[in-house]
Amino acid sequence: MSKIDQDVFYRSVSNEIEIFEHTYKNRLPLILKGPTGCGKSRFVEFSAKKLGIDLITVSCNEDTSASDLIGRYIYKNESVEWIDGPVTRAVRNGMILYLDEITEAREDVTVLIHSLTDHRRELFIDKTNEKLKATENFYLIASYNPSYQRGLKKMKPSTLQRFVSLEFNYPPTDIEVEIVSNESHLEEKKVKKLIAFSKHVRTLGELNLAETISTRLIINSAKLIKSGVDERSAVITGMTNPLSDDSDISKSLQDLVMLSF
Amino acid sequence: MSKIDQDVFYRSVSNEIEIFEHTYKNRLPLILKGPTGCGKSRFVEFSAKKLGIDLITVSCNEDTSASDLIGRYIYKNESVEWIDGPVTRAVRNGMILYLDEITEAREDVTVLIHSLTDHRRELFIDKTNEKLKATENFYLIASYNPSYQRGLKKMKPSTLQRFVSLEFNYPPTDIEVEIVSNESHLEEKKVKKLIAFSKHVRTLGELNLAETISTRLIINSAKLIKSGVDERSAVITGMTNPLSDDSDISKSLQDLVMLSF
Amino acid sequence: MSKIDQDVFYRSVSNEIEIFEHTYKNRLPLILKGPTGCGKSRFVEFSAKKLGIDLITVSCNEDTSASDLIGRYIYKNESVEWIDGPVTRAVRNGMILYLDEITEAREDVTVLIHSLTDHRRELFIDKTNEKLKATENFYLIASYNPSYQRGLKKMKPSTLQRFVSLEFNYPPTDIEVEIVSNESHLEEKKVKKLIAFSKHVRTLGELNLAETISTRLIINSAKLIKSGVDERSAVITGMTNPLSDDSDISKSLQDLVMLSF
Amino acid sequence: MSKIDQDVFYRSVSNEIEIFEHTYKNRLPLILKGPTGCGKSRFVEFSAKKLGIDLITVSCNEDTSASDLIGRYIYKNESVEWIDGPVTRAVRNGMILYLDEITEAREDVTVLIHSLTDHRRELFIDKTNEKLKATENFYLIASYNPSYQRGLKKMKPSTLQRFVSLEFNYPPTDIEVEIVSNESHLEEKKVKKLIAFSKHVRTLGELNLAETISTRLIINSAKLIKSGVDERSAVITGMTNPLSDDSDISKSLQDLVMLSF
Amino acid sequence: MSKIDQDVFYRSVSNEIEIFEHTYKNRLPLILKGPTGCGKSRFVEFSAKKLGIDLITVSCNEDTSASDLIGRYIYKNESVEWIDGPVTRAVRNGMILYLDEITEAREDVTVLIHSLTDHRRELFIDKTNEKLKATENFYLIASYNPSYQRGLKKMKPSTLQRFVSLEFNYPPTDIEVEIVSNESHLEEKKVKKLIAFSKHVRTLGELNLAETISTRLIINSAKLIKSGVDERSAVITGMTNPLSDDSDISKSLQDLVMLSF
Amino acid sequence: MSKIDQDVFYRSVSNEIEIFEHTYKNRLPLILKGPTGCGKSRFVEFSAKKLGIDLITVSCNEDTSASDLIGRYIYKNESVEWIDGPVTRAVRNGMILYLDEITEAREDVTVLIHSLTDHRRELFIDKTNEKLKATENFYLIASYNPSYQRGLKKMKPSTLQRFVSLEFNYPPTDIEVEIVSNESHLEEKKVKKLIAFSKHVRTLGELNLAETISTRLIINSAKLIKSGVDERSAVITGMTNPLSDDSDISKSLQDLVMLSF
Repeated sequence: MSKIDQDVFYRSVSNEIEIFEHTYKNRLPLILKGPTGCGKSRFVEFSAKKLGIDLITVSCNEDTSASDLIGRYIYKNESVEWIDGPVTRAVRNGMILYLDEITEAREDVTVLIHSLTDHRRELFIDKTNEKLKATENFYLIASYNPSYQRGLKKMKPSTLQRFVSLEFNYPPTDIEVEIVSNESHLEEKKVKKLIAFSKHVRTLGELNLAETISTRLIINSAKLIKSGVDERSAVITGMTNPLSDDSDISKSLQDLVMLSF
Repeated sequence: MSKIDQDVFYRSVSNEIEIFEHTYKNRLPLILKGPTGCGKSRFVEFSAKKLGIDLITVSCNEDTSASDLIGRYIYKNESVEWIDGPVTRAVRNGMILYLDEITEAREDVTVLIHSLTDHRRELFIDKTNEKLKATENFYLIASYNPSYQRGLKKMKPSTLQRFVSLEFNYPPTDIEVEIVSNESHLEEKKVKKLIAFSKHVRTLGELNLAETISTRLIINSAKLIKSGVDERSAVITGMTNPLSDDSDISKSLQDLVMLSF
Repeated sequence: MSKIDQDVFYRSVSNEIEIFEHTYKNRLPLILKGPTGCGKSRFVEFSAKKLGIDLITVSCNEDTSASDLIGRYIYKNESVEWIDGPVTRAVRNGMILYLDEITEAREDVTVLIHSLTDHRRELFIDKTNEKLKATENFYLIASYNPSYQRGLKKMKPSTLQRFVSLEFNYPPTDIEVEIVSNESHLEEKKVKKLIAFSKHVRTLGELNLAETISTRLIINSAKLIKSGVDERSAVITGMTNPLSDDSDISKSLQDLVMLSF
Repeated sequence: MSKIDQDVFYRSVSNEIEIFEHTYKNRLPLILKGPTGCGKSRFVEFSAKKLGIDLITVSCNEDTSASDLIGRYIYKNESVEWIDGPVTRAVRNGMILYLDEITEAREDVTVLIHSLTDHRRELFIDKTNEKLKATENFYLIASYNPSYQRGLKKMKPSTLQRFVSLEFNYPPTDIEVEIVSNESHLEEKKVKKLIAFSKHVRTLGELNLAETISTRLIINSAKLIKSGVDERSAVITGMTNPLSDDSDISKSLQDLVMLSF
Repeated sequence: MSKIDQDVFYRSVSNEIEIFEHTYKNRLPLILKGPTGCGKSRFVEFSAKKLGIDLITVSCNEDTSASDLIGRYIYKNESVEWIDGPVTRAVRNGMILYLDEITEAREDVTVLIHSLTDHRRELFIDKTNEKLKATENFYLIASYNPSYQRGLKKMKPSTLQRFVSLEFNYPPTDIEVEIVSNESHLEEKKVKKLIAFSKHVRTLGELNLAETISTRLIINSAKLIKSGVDERSAVITGMTNPLSDDSDISKSLQDLVMLSF
Repeated sequence: MSKIDQDVFYRSVSNEIEIFEHTYKNRLPLILKGPTGCGKSRFVEFSAKKLGIDLITVSCNEDTSASDLIGRYIYKNESVEWIDGPVTRAVRNGMILYLDEITEAREDVTVLIHSLTDHRRELFIDKTNEKLKATENFYLIASYNPSYQRGLKKMKPSTLQRFVSLEFNYPPTDIEVEIVSNESHLEEKKVKKLIAFSKHVRTLGELNLAETISTRLIINSAKLIKSGVDERSAVITGMTNPLSDDSDISKSLQDLVMLSF
C-alpha cells in the first residue's frame, strides 16, 4: 500500500492512490479536504507525475478572479495578443489543473468551473467568444481546509456536489517518522523524540490552537537540529513559535519544551 | 408521460414538458426553481434540443454584470470592434437564453431583462445606442434555488412576477433508478442499494444538511463502483464526503456507510 | 372616465388622466408611487402616446449612475465622439423621460435631476462643459414602489418634494376583468374565476407575502388556459409559484388551487 | 426690510441680506443651514445677482469627489487638453461658488476647500502642479440640512468652524402668502386656504414626518388649482402624496384634506 | 518668550519655538497634536519662515493615498513625463513637508513615511524604481487632532513612536486678546467682551459640544463687528451657529447671546 | 554573545544571531515577531550586511498587493517595458527580501509567497507567463507584531506554518543603556535616569497603553537632552506625548515626569 516516487516523495496513508486511479479514469472532478501541511499538495504532485501529465497549480486567494484564470489581452509591439491564463492552458493542452484552497477564491471562480465539472467539460472564454472543449487528459482537482471556512467563505453545496471528495489527515506515527527522516536526514531516534513531543501537543485540547503542529513544522525543527542548533532552540523556533501568538500559550509551550528536551 | 431524447437524456417527472410547450408558444418568460442537481439544467437542454433552437447558458455569479451580458468593444488590429455578449446574441439571433442561478447575479442583470420580459421584448444596448427587437424564436428561461437565497440575494417580487414558474424536485425512486442506471451502466441491483441509502440519508432531518444527496452524487458513486472501487470507498468518496464538513456528521455518515454496505 | 387607446391599452382607474394633463401643462415633475404590476409604466406609455411625444424609459438599478444617463465619449474610427445618454437625449430633443424605480438608482442620479426639476429646467454636462436648457416639450416622470424601499434606499424628502405625486393601486374587479379579457382573449367566465381566486389570496394577510397577485400574473395564467393548459397547472405555474418561496406557503396555496378549480 | 429683485424673486425673512453684505465684504466663507425648500438656493441666486457676480452651483452628492470639482484632462483631436472643473473656474475667474448640500459630498471635497477658506485663499491643483490664488471677487458659499446628517455624514467641526453660518427656516404666514401668490398667480383667498392647511399639518408632531410641507409644495398645489384641477386632487397630488410613504399617515392626511377642502 | 514675525503672525504660548529648534537640528520627525483652530498650522508656517526653508502643506483626507503624494506619469505631447508629488518634491529639494491631519489619510501614507522617519531618511519610488536620499534640509512635520480619531482612524502606536510630539491648546486670555485684536483691528474692549463670552461657553460642559469655540471663530465675529454688523448677529453668525446643529443647544446659545450682548 | 558591526549597529539579546546562521543555511523562511521598535528591522539589516547579501525591504500596508510586489508594464518611449517589482528583483538576483509587518498586506501577498516558501522556491509571474526559480542566495524574512493583529488581519495558521519563527522583545537594562548611549552620545548617568523612568512606566499596567515606551523613544529624548533641551521637556516631547492620546493618562504621565526629573 506504500509507494515511493523518486522525484516527488509521497507516502500514502490509506487507499487514496487507488481511488485516484478511478476518479481520474472516470474524469470525476476531485476535491481534497484536510488541514494545513498534511500532504494534499504533495499528493497532487505525486499523482500528476505518476500519470506523466503536466500539472498547473493555482494558489487561490481572495483576489483570485475568473478573468485572472482564463487569460487576458496584452498590448505588445503595438499589437494585441491574447495570453491564456492557467485554466485555459490546462483545458487546451490537457493538463491537470490544481486549484489549491479554492474556498479562498472569489465566487466567480467556482462558477467558472461549472461547465468544466459536468458532462460538458468545456470552458467558455467570453473575451474571445471561444467555446473550448477540454482535451482528453484534462482533469480538475481542488482542495480546501474545512476548519478555515469563515463566514461567507464556505463551499456552496451546489459546487461541492460537483466533485467526488477525499479526506486527508496527519499520518500515523510510523509513517510520520519515515517522512521526517527522509526529508531532514536527522537520525531516527531524534526524529521520534520530536514526533512524540508533537503528538503530545496535538492532544492538548485546552490550548485552543486554530491548527496544531503539522508534519511540515516537525521537518523544519529536524532540519535545524541536523544543521547544529540545540534541540530546545530548534523546537521553539521551528515548532512552537509558529503555533500561537497568545503569550500565555507561548509560555506554556516553552515550558513544555524545557521539560521535554 | 415519459420521453427520452437520444442526445440529451431527460426523464420527465410530471407534466413539465407539456407546460413548457405552452409557455414557449405564448413566449411567457419561464423561471425554474428547485434544489441542486435535480435536473433543471438538463430540462432546459432537452427542451431546446426538442424545439431545435440553439441554447446559450449563462452561469450567473456575484460578478456577473449587465455589461458582461450585453457585449463590449474590443480593440483589434488598431480598430474597434463590437462583440455581442450572450444576451445580445440570443436576442439578435432568436436563441433560447438560460440564466442559471439568476439570484447570484448582480442586480443590474435582473433589471436588464425587464424590457425582455414584458410586451416590448426588446433590449436596449446603451453603448451602441441600439434598440434591439427580439427575433421570433427568442425565449428567456432562468433558474434559482429558493433554499440558497441569502440576505439581499432574494429575487425581488417585482422581478419574479415577470415570469411563470415551474417547481422542480428530486425524482421518485423508480425514475431515479432509471436515471442512475442509464448514466453509470452499473447493474440495477447495486443502483437500488445506493438509492435506498440516499433515501435513508434524505430522511435524516437531524443531520441539518444544507442540501441532501442529489441524483448527481448517486451517479458519481455508481460510476466509481462500476470502475472497480469497493462500495464503501465509492460511497464515502462520491456521496458522503461532499455532503458535510462537520466532523461529527462526517463520522456518523461513515458509520452509516459501514453498516449499510 | 374610461378611455381605451388602440395601440397602448390603458384603462384608467380614477381621474389620473385629467390630473396628468395639468401636471404636464405646468411641467410639474411627476412621480408615480404604487406596487408591482399595477399599471404605472402602462400609464406613462399611454400618456406619452396621447401627447404624441417620444418616450425614453430608464429602468433604474443600483448600478445606474449619473454618467450613464448623461452620456460618454466613445473612441470610433480613431476619433473621439460624444454620445448623448438617455437623459441628455430627452432634454435636448424635448422628449418625456421616465425613470422607472428611481429609488434603485445610485444617489448621484437623484441629484442629477435637481436642476431639471426646479425653475431652471437645465442639465449641466460637466464632461463637455455644456449647460443644456430643456426644450419646451421635455417632461420628467419617475416611479417607485414605497413598499420596497430598503434601508438607505428611501427617497430623500428633499428629492420627493421636487415632484407632484400620483398614487397607483390594483384596479377594482370590473375593470380588472376588462383588462385581463382584453389581454388574454380568454372567455369572461373563466377570467372572473381567476380574479375571484386572486381577490381571495389578496385578503389572506396571514400569508405574509411581500407582494400579492398582480394583474400581470392573472393575465399570464389566463393566457396559459387559453393556450390549452389545464386550469390548475396554469394557476400554479402562472400565479402561485411566482408568489412565494416558502415551502409551507407554497403548499397552502397549492391546496387552495385544488379546492378552487 | 423686504426687497424684490425682478429676475430672481427673493423675499427676505430677517436681516440675512444685510449680514451677507458684510460676510462678502470680509470674504468670510459662508454656510447656510436649514430644511428643504426654505429658500437657501434662492437666497444665493439673489445675492449673486445683486452683486453682479457669476454664480456656479454644485449639487453635491455621495459621488462628488475633489477631482470632479477641480478638473480633468480630456483627449481631444489627438492632443490632451485640461478642462477646469467648477471650483477651479470659480477661483480663476472670481465667481461665487455655491456647494449645495456639502455634507453629501465625499470627504475629500471638504478638505479641498481648506486652503480656500483661510487666509491663503488658494487652490492647489495637483494634476497640473499649479497653485492658484483666488481672484478678488471669488467667494465660497455652502449649504446643508442639519436634520439630514446621517451617520458619518456630519460636518466635521473643524470644517464647520471655517465658515460663518446663517440659519434659514420656513417664512412667517404673511410672507409665505406673498411668495406663493407671486409664483402661482392664484388668487390670495385660495392661497391663504392652502397655507392654513399646511400650517395645520406642520403642527401635527404625531405624524413623525422626516420633513414637513415646504413652501415649494404649496406653490405646486397652487399652480394645479390655477390650472383647473379641483382643490382636493391638487392638494393630495401636490402636497400630501410627496410627504409620506406610510399608508396610515397617507390615509390620515387624505382624510384631513377631505375635511379641509 | 513672545516673538512676532512680520509676515506670518505667530504668538508662542509656551517654549514650543525653542523645542522646535532642537527637534529640527536633530531632524527628529515632529508631530503636533491639538484641537481645531488652535494654531498648529500657523506654528508650522512661522517655523518654516524662520528657518528660511520652503514649506509644502498636504491637507490629508480619506482619499489621500501614497501614490498621490509620491507622483505620477502624465501623458503630454505624445510622450510620458514623470511629475513629482508633494512628498517627493520635499525630499528631493530639501523642503519642510507638513502632513496636516495625517490620521485622515489612507494607511499607506503612514507606511510611506516609515523610511523617511528613521535613520535611512530615504524614499523609495517604486514606479520609477528610484531610491531617493533626502537632502539635508528635508524635515517632516505632521499633525492630528486626538479628539477626532474615530474607529480605525487612530494613529498606530508604531507610527506615533516614530515622531517626537508637541501638544497644542487654546491660548490663555491675554494672548488670545492680542491675537484677535491683531487679526480683526477691532478695539480691545469689544474683543475682551467676545473672549469673555467664549470662555464662558468653553466651560459649559453640559452642552456636550464636539469642539468648543476656537480662536478662529472669535476672529470671524470680531471682523463682522468691525465691518458694521451688530454684536448679537455677529456672534450668532460667527460663533454660535458654527458650533452645533442640535436645535435645543442652538436655542440655549442664542439665549446666552441675548443675555451677554 | 555580543557583536557590534561598524556600519549597522546591532546588539544581540539572545542567541538570535547563531540561529539565523542555520535558518539561512537551510533556507528555512524566517518570520520575526515582536513589538514596535525592539530591533527587528535592525536585526535584518545587520544580518544581511554580515552575509554580504543585498537587502530589499518592503513596508507592507493594507494597499500592498501582489501585483505591486511582482512588477508591472510601463509605457515608455512608445514601447512597453516590464519592470520587476521588489519580490521579483530579490528572487531573480538572489537578494534577501524583508516583508516588514506582513500582516498589514493584502491577502494575495501571503499567497504569492507560498511557492517561495516550500521546496519549489519559485515565483510565477502571470503577466509575463514566466516561472522564476529563485537563485541560490535568495532568502525570505517577514515580520509582524502579534499584539496588533486586528480582526481579519491575523496571520493565517497555514501561512505561519510555512516559516520558522524568532521572538523579539525589549532588551534588558544593561544592553539598553549601551544601545541608547551609543546612538545619542549622551552621558551614561543621564541615559540610566531615562531608562529607569521608562522601566517604571513599562510596569504601570493600569495605564492600559497599547504599546509601552520603546528603545527608540528613549533615544529620541536622549538626543534632545544632548542637544540642549531641558530634561522635562525632552522626556515629555520624546517619550510621553507619543505614548497616549487619553488626556487623563497624559496628565498622569506628565506628573510622573515632574516628580522624576
